[in-house]
Amino acid sequence: MQNGHATEAPPNPGIVFEMMQAIHRTAALKAAIELDVFRAVGEGPGDVASIARHSNASERGTRILCDFLVINGVLAKEGNCYKHTPTSAAFLDPRSPACLASTAHFLGNNAMQDPLHKLAQIVREGRTSLPGDGSVEPENPIWVQFAETMAPMMGPLAGPLGAVVLEGHQGPMRVLDIAAGHGLFGIEIAKQKKDAHVTGLDWAPVLRVALKNAEKAGVHDRYEMLPGSAFDVDFGGPYDAVLLTNFLHHFDKPTCVGLLKKVHRALKPGGRAATLEFVPNEDRVSPPQAAAFSMVMLTTTPAGDAYTFSELSSMYDEAGFTGVKAHPIPGSPHTVVVGNA
Amino acid sequence: MQNGHATEAPPNPGIVFEMMQAIHRTAALKAAIELDVFRAVGEGPGDVASIARHSNASERGTRILCDFLVINGVLAKEGNCYKHTPTSAAFLDPRSPACLASTAHFLGNNAMQDPLHKLAQIVREGRTSLPGDGSVEPENPIWVQFAETMAPMMGPLAGPLGAVVLEGHQGPMRVLDIAAGHGLFGIEIAKQKKDAHVTGLDWAPVLRVALKNAEKAGVHDRYEMLPGSAFDVDFGGPYDAVLLTNFLHHFDKPTCVGLLKKVHRALKPGGRAATLEFVPNEDRVSPPQAAAFSMVMLTTTPAGDAYTFSELSSMYDEAGFTGVKAHPIPGSPHTVVVGNA
Repeated sequence: MQNGHATEAPPNPGIVFEMMQAIHRTAALKAAIELDVFRAVGEGPGDVASIARHSNASERGTRILCDFLVINGVLAKEGNCYKHTPTSAAFLDPRSPACLASTAHFLGNNAMQDPLHKLAQIVREGRTSLPGDGSVEPENPIWVQFAETMAPMMGPLAGPLGAVVLEGHQGPMRVLDIAAGHGLFGIEIAKQKKDAHVTGLDWAPVLRVALKNAEKAGVHDRYEMLPGSAFDVDFGGPYDAVLLTNFLHHFDKPTCVGLLKKVHRALKPGGRAATLEFVPNEDRVSPPQAAAFSMVMLTTTPAGDAYTFSELSSMYDEAGFTGVKAHPIPGSPHTVVVGNA
Repeated sequence: MQNGHATEAPPNPGIVFEMMQAIHRTAALKAAIELDVFRAVGEGPGDVASIARHSNASERGTRILCDFLVINGVLAKEGNCYKHTPTSAAFLDPRSPACLASTAHFLGNNAMQDPLHKLAQIVREGRTSLPGDGSVEPENPIWVQFAETMAPMMGPLAGPLGAVVLEGHQGPMRVLDIAAGHGLFGIEIAKQKKDAHVTGLDWAPVLRVALKNAEKAGVHDRYEMLPGSAFDVDFGGPYDAVLLTNFLHHFDKPTCVGLLKKVHRALKPGGRAATLEFVPNEDRVSPPQAAAFSMVMLTTTPAGDAYTFSELSSMYDEAGFTGVKAHPIPGSPHTVVVGNA
C-alpha cells in the first residue's frame, strides 16, 4: 500500500471540489504578482484602499483577491489589514532577494500552461501537444526566459550541488556545465574554488545570460562558452566534473544513456558527473513535489519523465559510471545524483 | 490576528510553487473524467495497460496522469496497480450515485474558467470580464447546464434545507422556490410534506429540467412553474415559505435587499424566507471553501459576493424580516439562513 492515508480516510467531497477549483489558486497568484500586490502589502499600511490605489485596481477586486491569498497562506490578515506571512515576505515581495515572481512568470508562460487545456489529448497521445518537440525543440526561446527567470529558484541549490561536486577534490579543476541556462551552478563552483575553470554549454542566446551572471559574480575570466546542442557539439575536455542540471528529465532513457556515455568519454578517469533532478521514490507518487514533476514532462516534452533513483542509477551504470549516489538537497524537492567515471 | 498559523510558520517556498502549479490539479481532474479513468479504475484490474486500453490512451500518459491523481488523494496505488480511495469511489466513479463528474463539467465550463485568464484585469475593473452581466445575464444558458449538472452537489443539501424550512410547520403549505434550477430544494419539501404545493421560478428552459426532476420524484402534480426573472415576475402567493438558494451571492447588497422586500410581501405573516449560501466568518477568510467562493463571484458577476452572516442578517432586517438565524449544514460549506416575515 503506497498511499494508506488517502485510502483509509472517509470519503470527502471537499477534496474533489478543491481540485476542481485549484486553477483559481494559480490565477490568483499570477494576478497578484502582475498587480504588484505583494509590494503594496510589504510597504503598508495594508488596508484595501491603499493596496487598490497602489495596484490601480478596484477595491472590490482587491479585497476579494487579498482574502483569497490569505485563505491560501500567502498573506495574513489582521482586522481589515493585510500583512505578509513569512513565506510571502521572503518569496513574493519583490523587495526580497529571494523573490520568486520571475519564476512564477516562467512557470506560468504559455508554453508551460497551454498544454494543460489539452491534457486529455496529451494523455491519449502520450506526448506534449506543443509544436515539434515542445520544450526540447532546438533553440526554443523559452530557455532564454528560463535562464533569465529561474535564478531565484535555482540559486539556493547551487551551494549544495557545488559541495557535492567539490567534495574531496584537490588541485585545479575543469568543469563542463551542460545546459548551463543561467549558469549559476558552474559559477558557484568557480566561486567556491579559485582554480576551477568552467565551460558553459547551451544555446548561444542562453549563454549570453550565463555570461552576464559570471561577470556579476566576478568569475568571467574563468568562464568559457560552448554554444550548441549537448547532443551535437564536441565537449572537448577532459574534465574533472560535468554538471547535468535539470536536463535528463526532458528525454527518454536511451537518449539519457547516450548522453551519459558521451559525458563519460569527456571525463578524466575518476571524474564526476552530477545531475540535478526531481527524483521521486520508487512508488513514483512520493514525495509529492518531486513526483508531480512528471506531469510537467508529460505536458511539455515528447518522452521525458521524473526518473526514480533506480532508473537514474541504471542509466549511469549502462554508461560506464560507478559508485552512483543520491544526495537529496534538504528543504528542496531536488536531488543531486553523482557517478564516477 | 485572523491567520496566526500561516503568519508564524517558517518561510516555505513550497507553498508558492504549489500555488504556481495548482492549475495542473484542475487540468488532471478534468482529463481523467474525460478519459473515463475513474470507471476504469473501479472496474479493475487497475494496471496501467488496462486503464490505457479502456481510455484509448497511451501508457506513458496514463501512468503519469494516474500517479498525479494518487499524489492528489483521488486514487490510491498498490504496487503498480491503481485503486479507488473512498473519496474517488464515492465522488468520481461514474458508477456511484454521488458521482460529481457532471459538477466538475459545470465548474470547468468556459464561462466559469475563461475569466481566470484575465484575473488581473477583473481585479482592476472590479467586475467579471464576461460579456454583459456575466453569469447573471438574463436567460444565460449556463443556468440550464447548472440545472442539468449540479444535482449531485446540491442533492445532499436538500434534506437539511427542507428540515429547517419545515420545522414546526403544521397544515398545508405553499412554497415558492426562486431560482429553482434543478428544482431539488422545492421537490424535497414536496417529498417531505404531502400537503405542500411548490412553485418553481426560473428561466423557462431551466424550469423544464426542474419539471423533469419533479416527475422523477413523483411530485409533479403539486409542482407549478413560474417562468421569468425573479426581479420582474409577479410572485403571486401568499406563501408559507420562499426558498432563495444559491441566488443572493450573485448581486450587490441593494439588489438583495430589494429582492428580499419583494419576497417579504409575498409571504404570509410569520412565513419563512430561507437562503442557501456560502457564508464565511466575519474575517472573510475562513472557513476556506465558503470564503474562497467570493473569487467565483468576482470572476463571473458584476457585483456578487460571499456575504457574511452579519451582512445577510442586515439585508433581512432591512427588508422587514425578524428572528434571522444561520443553520450551517454539517459536512458541507453551505449555510441555510432563515428569517420570518
